[in-house]
Amino acid sequence: MGSLDMNYNESSYPCRDFKPLDPEELRKQAHQMVDFIADYYKNIESYPVLSQVQPGYLRTRFPQTAPYRPESLETIFSDVAKDIIPGMTHWLSPNFFAFFPATVSTAGFLGEMLSTSFNSVGFNWLASPAATELEMVVMDWLANMLKLPKSFMFSGTGGGVIQSTTSESILVTLIAARDRVVSEVGMENMQKIVVNGSDQTHSMFTKSSKLAGINPCNIRSVPTSRETGFSLCPLMLRRVVKADVAGGLIPLYLCTNVGTTSTTAVDPLEQLANVANDYGMWVHVDAAYGGSACICPEFRQYLNGVERVDSFSLSPHKWLLSYLDCCCLWVKQPGLLVKALSTNPEYLKNKPSESDSVVDYKDWQVGTGRKFQSLRLWLVLRSYGIANLQNHIRSDVRMAKMFEGFVKSDPRFEIVTPRRFALVCFRLNPSTLSSNSEIIESLNRNLLDWINSTGQACLSHTKVSGLYMLRFAVGATLTEECHVVAAWKLITNGAEELLKTIV
Amino acid sequence: MGSLDMNYNESSYPCRDFKPLDPEELRKQAHQMVDFIADYYKNIESYPVLSQVQPGYLRTRFPQTAPYRPESLETIFSDVAKDIIPGMTHWLSPNFFAFFPATVSTAGFLGEMLSTSFNSVGFNWLASPAATELEMVVMDWLANMLKLPKSFMFSGTGGGVIQSTTSESILVTLIAARDRVVSEVGMENMQKIVVNGSDQTHSMFTKSSKLAGINPCNIRSVPTSRETGFSLCPLMLRRVVKADVAGGLIPLYLCTNVGTTSTTAVDPLEQLANVANDYGMWVHVDAAYGGSACICPEFRQYLNGVERVDSFSLSPHKWLLSYLDCCCLWVKQPGLLVKALSTNPEYLKNKPSESDSVVDYKDWQVGTGRKFQSLRLWLVLRSYGIANLQNHIRSDVRMAKMFEGFVKSDPRFEIVTPRRFALVCFRLNPSTLSSNSEIIESLNRNLLDWINSTGQACLSHTKVSGLYMLRFAVGATLTEECHVVAAWKLITNGAEELLKTIV
Repeated sequence: MGSLDMNYNESSYPCRDFKPLDPEELRKQAHQMVDFIADYYKNIESYPVLSQVQPGYLRTRFPQTAPYRPESLETIFSDVAKDIIPGMTHWLSPNFFAFFPATVSTAGFLGEMLSTSFNSVGFNWLASPAATELEMVVMDWLANMLKLPKSFMFSGTGGGVIQSTTSESILVTLIAARDRVVSEVGMENMQKIVVNGSDQTHSMFTKSSKLAGINPCNIRSVPTSRETGFSLCPLMLRRVVKADVAGGLIPLYLCTNVGTTSTTAVDPLEQLANVANDYGMWVHVDAAYGGSACICPEFRQYLNGVERVDSFSLSPHKWLLSYLDCCCLWVKQPGLLVKALSTNPEYLKNKPSESDSVVDYKDWQVGTGRKFQSLRLWLVLRSYGIANLQNHIRSDVRMAKMFEGFVKSDPRFEIVTPRRFALVCFRLNPSTLSSNSEIIESLNRNLLDWINSTGQACLSHTKVSGLYMLRFAVGATLTEECHVVAAWKLITNGAEELLKTIV
Repeated sequence: MGSLDMNYNESSYPCRDFKPLDPEELRKQAHQMVDFIADYYKNIESYPVLSQVQPGYLRTRFPQTAPYRPESLETIFSDVAKDIIPGMTHWLSPNFFAFFPATVSTAGFLGEMLSTSFNSVGFNWLASPAATELEMVVMDWLANMLKLPKSFMFSGTGGGVIQSTTSESILVTLIAARDRVVSEVGMENMQKIVVNGSDQTHSMFTKSSKLAGINPCNIRSVPTSRETGFSLCPLMLRRVVKADVAGGLIPLYLCTNVGTTSTTAVDPLEQLANVANDYGMWVHVDAAYGGSACICPEFRQYLNGVERVDSFSLSPHKWLLSYLDCCCLWVKQPGLLVKALSTNPEYLKNKPSESDSVVDYKDWQVGTGRKFQSLRLWLVLRSYGIANLQNHIRSDVRMAKMFEGFVKSDPRFEIVTPRRFALVCFRLNPSTLSSNSEIIESLNRNLLDWINSTGQACLSHTKVSGLYMLRFAVGATLTEECHVVAAWKLITNGAEELLKTIV
């Protein structure tokens, strides 16, 4: 790489003929990139899953300034191989079982290429009619697959939008709910607003609530327990809300979960909605991970009661092969979103918007600009069809069941919380060991470090109600049974080594 | 496309061997997609620039449900050509002069392909060390190119982050500023907080302020005038802030502009920062469009005073060839962002984060998940070098100057506001016509409709201080002089036709 040289004059470097987008050059170089990427996927198992680099590794390898003159694609490819790939945690490795998977597919990749290539900025309908209308079509398709009620569909009285993340979905619905209440009680009472979730609700709920100006003292995190599978208890919620109302506070919003991040717990939507409806609260369902499974009839029960809620989101990038970012949000009353989020500057005014005959998605989200988001999901749904997507979910669940069987059959281990989807929460807890919870926690922490430091598999952990446990999330797109078997063997090897040092 | 058939059982469709990511299939199909995209770019001038479809055009063409069984890539390509492309407004057409350009390049395309392919979720350092560290490197590179002070760089005391949009940059800095003040004055005084911008500040500033819970009555929009080129007057600002303070309010945040959306006006940063500093306000510079030009020394003066502000953002997707989304935000005190936005759930805890030796970008943004954002910009900077990027800016400015010359040489037209970058604001205002402003506005509205309906070029409009004007923004990556010449010819043809009907 060259060094920065700002001491030049306009004619010092002969680049008058600089053409950043020559179609034939793009064709040639993009073909090279396709081969680079296909090879990366082919060889992905050869890299340590969890990166083994140290903080600051890259800064010393790269120059402090951008090059003044162009560098060749070959140099760049070589640096990617030498400096970037070793610093990556390979989420797409078939041996990645940490967090939740970030799923991908050939169709998703093609869809993203196409979306990128158009680079249209669909802030309103006119700026890219196809982008808006395809998103409306795809959101209705997915709503149909989930058997959401018509009240969430454009073909009914609601509608859907693709957001970047669940955080954004929570934020915009929270704002819509907030502004509806504030218009009744006045800004001066905003500090009385209370929002509710369980202690299993994703941390971004608290963050989004703070962003929206909710008083941090008024963000309720209702406790759950192992006995109820860490799901939010309607009675407990009612008690909390009642107390707040008695204290002069205004219950605004309830964030429920279909598949919590720690253990994939599922809240009883119907009963919770009953409580919330009694108090006029907005109910959101965060089904970021678990929602995708509900395209299979055997999981659809988890959405019972969804007809009683106000908004619902799930992230196809987690389980529907769509690549990042893709969080689908459906709302019953798009008008409330638009009321809270619309802008109408002169430079964006146009006849279709003024005629009120179109959707302007800028009024459904935080930002103004937006990509042609729906192409990826459209290609996935069409290229694979519902049948294959259901099959994909079931295949992951089958592998998780298999892993669960391995754990159950080994007396040194235990399943900590019941498996619902394709995540298994387990821990090493040999009966030969004292039941001292600190010792067990430390043993499992060491086991996790041992596994991840081999680079042969990557798991993550959580701690719920004081219980430290390992999370084995099946779902990386390339994972097959052999990888699950190998991971279990690795885990038991680690356990043996660690137990040896203790006994 | 097939129809939805939910009446099946698990074995009804033989897709046991469904492999969503077979590297060889990806290779084959992605090569096909590359050719499709290169051909799209090659033929882009054959499509009407502004889409000519009617609202609802797509819904009637597509089935109501996703297909149950897979469809072929050939069918999908054919539908893209038949149903999607005609519904697009082609932002990448060389004849697109509306809004601000959304710029692209071969290197940006390759970078996005690579980023997509990795699909790593870099919420914290450990989840993808390379993603975090490359972003830090690239943000320092770009800061260097802009000659930002060390206080904004990781190599100094600050740092940068890639956000999706300017809205997000404003929102997170506003929240950081808000929480700093609230920690001093208490939540009960939040309703006293005031934020300031000019009447030329982008509409998303008001929106972001509302999102953050700022009382809508306390969002100041300080008037500007044609005399001062629609830039924010420091004296006027001081007067407004003084009055607010006298009224017991708390001035929090000032959003300044380097290149406003309507007319690319530039606010005097240094003098405005003086005022804001006197009142302890956070100063943000929104240089979404104009900032990129400041990599050229002849434009760098517009950033004079930037050393006095708290945060600065620009969007390389607007002028630095990077594709959407890419908004670069630098802050002087990353600690304030982190304090306001950090989350620390058990399932994301890890040793590097706890040792405080790394950057966890989830604490610099709204959401948790994030893509490997910096690859695109890294490829652009390295593939082209600073020299070519400066040349690219200058080439656009040269073409805009040329267009400005055309307008000036035609007595029927006038330049409405001085051109600073590559946007020309002009209107038809023949001396033969009455100076009735309504008639002139209606004439120019008709001219805009006439131009856009031809499909041969696309312009947009704005209205500032009651003056309706057309915006001719040069900068679409494929635009060359011949396209500017042709657009001017089209505009004069339209003017002639319209004037004929009047006279």
